[in-house]
Amino acid sequence: MDWVYVLNVIGVFVFAISGTLTAIDNGFDVVGASIIAFITALGGGTLRDLLIGKTPVGWMLDTNYLWVILGALLVSYLFKEHIQRLRKSMFIFDTIGIGVFTILGLQTTLEVGLNPAVAILMGVVSAVFGGVIRDVLSNIVPLIFRSEIYASTCVVGGLVYLLLEMLHVPFTLNMLFSMAVIFVIRYFAVTRKWSLKF
Amino acid sequence: MDWVYVLNVIGVFVFAISGTLTAIDNGFDVVGASIIAFITALGGGTLRDLLIGKTPVGWMLDTNYLWVILGALLVSYLFKEHIQRLRKSMFIFDTIGIGVFTILGLQTTLEVGLNPAVAILMGVVSAVFGGVIRDVLSNIVPLIFRSEIYASTCVVGGLVYLLLEMLHVPFTLNMLFSMAVIFVIRYFAVTRKWSLKF
Amino acid sequence: MDWVYVLNVIGVFVFAISGTLTAIDNGFDVVGASIIAFITALGGGTLRDLLIGKTPVGWMLDTNYLWVILGALLVSYLFKEHIQRLRKSMFIFDTIGIGVFTILGLQTTLEVGLNPAVAILMGVVSAVFGGVIRDVLSNIVPLIFRSEIYASTCVVGGLVYLLLEMLHVPFTLNMLFSMAVIFVIRYFAVTRKWSLKF
Repeated sequence: MDWVYVLNVIGVFVFAISGTLTAIDNGFDVVGASIIAFITALGGGTLRDLLIGKTPVGWMLDTNYLWVILGALLVSYLFKEHIQRLRKSMFIFDTIGIGVFTILGLQTTLEVGLNPAVAILMGVVSAVFGGVIRDVLSNIVPLIFRSEIYASTCVVGGLVYLLLEMLHVPFTLNMLFSMAVIFVIRYFAVTRKWSLKF
Repeated sequence: MDWVYVLNVIGVFVFAISGTLTAIDNGFDVVGASIIAFITALGGGTLRDLLIGKTPVGWMLDTNYLWVILGALLVSYLFKEHIQRLRKSMFIFDTIGIGVFTILGLQTTLEVGLNPAVAILMGVVSAVFGGVIRDVLSNIVPLIFRSEIYASTCVVGGLVYLLLEMLHVPFTLNMLFSMAVIFVIRYFAVTRKWSLKF
Repeated sequence: MDWVYVLNVIGVFVFAISGTLTAIDNGFDVVGASIIAFITALGGGTLRDLLIGKTPVGWMLDTNYLWVILGALLVSYLFKEHIQRLRKSMFIFDTIGIGVFTILGLQTTLEVGLNPAVAILMGVVSAVFGGVIRDVLSNIVPLIFRSEIYASTCVVGGLVYLLLEMLHVPFTLNMLFSMAVIFVIRYFAVTRKWSLKF
């Protein structure tokens, strides 16, 4: 399952960079930026682990994540200008992060013996609540509450994953396919500005 | 204890509706409304379960709650206009919810062997923190911090419950009476605009 | 370890007073002020306990803390004017609180067998997240995200503590010295307006 770990690390890295950029935009100091980077990257998984009772929370048992975030902070400060110009490619990595976090969150929840409906919710929480906490701490209404198809993409991806698992599709193939679904929906949602607003 | 379960479900349903209406007022999309409905209804009990160490948190083990919230979301969107006109009756159900959540939260905390003072606090947390988190996510100062006798009503109800339990009043009678106390105080607090402001 | 307990109680007391004053400034009622006082004083340690899986969280097992906070609330309301004039001395006690909370948080995390890097993070969380949650509930961007060397002082203090522990400096001496480091840095940071802003 090594490649899943690699994707997970990429997700954490990209989320940490996006957190740092948001913090800089808001005029936070280094400490604030570090906290926001950390929470954007690991907040969703942390909340999931708390809710399903898996403590100490995951990242405490694998300090690699701390170094990845520290690296992301460094990269953000050193290459601030470059990254701003790369926002479009960032969005691709960001979507990879959402895909991995959703499916891994769902998987983790199933493993502790909880219901598939709860597992899908926890997949969504893993993928989006880092950003929600980031926005709350930055004193803005969480982005996902307005106009963007973000959390709902995770729900669809999670449903596809569960369906394929019921059909005995092997884990690797299932994971790749479900992530691809999330990626494609999100790609069109952003480029064509889909919305679920009433 | 079936009727307690029914009251609990009513509480969750009404809290979810009030959450959805707040979300619609704030211009959130369906996803935002779902998250806010969910958190308003189950946030308080979830926080209590986390603090007292009862994980996975309660609603994960009884998916009925998820369907009740889904139902509340549907009802809110279908009968938006009607519900707005029924606000007054909603307030009665809302107060039932607060009563049940307070006493059940207190009871749950006593059951894990914690101190009665802590149990009263956890009763309050169960009843009001769903609303607090809803307000924080909507980027407003939590309503209960201003002018309304809300949390203090729960404290009084909790004290009455503990007192009657010490006097060996049977559970059902005690629960009904304590909830009635909460209901009456809150009713007069709202209709006569009582306040504890300094 | 009695004197550590005493320092801890002082920290809780002072944090609760500062929380109450903030709440009064924001026009919250008694309930709001109590909640804010409580969260400012115990929020950091509570979050740490949740994350490392030590539940029920600490203060639930030692109700002294509840009375200390109740005392702080009373003192705040009775001597509001006097305390405002004593802000400078308050700052000294506040810094004592930060020192104790940092080192105790770090120590508690090491005791459950977690990594020193995680322990330092949890020291910081214990010291500053009460204030972060207070600010979020008051609907302002957390103070520590802007201009003040606050969390970084805790990191330095934590590093000093770990270093001295590796050198087998006895606990009491180490604790006193690390707290002194935090105190001195913070003192100069505030009086000379140091900043880490970019």
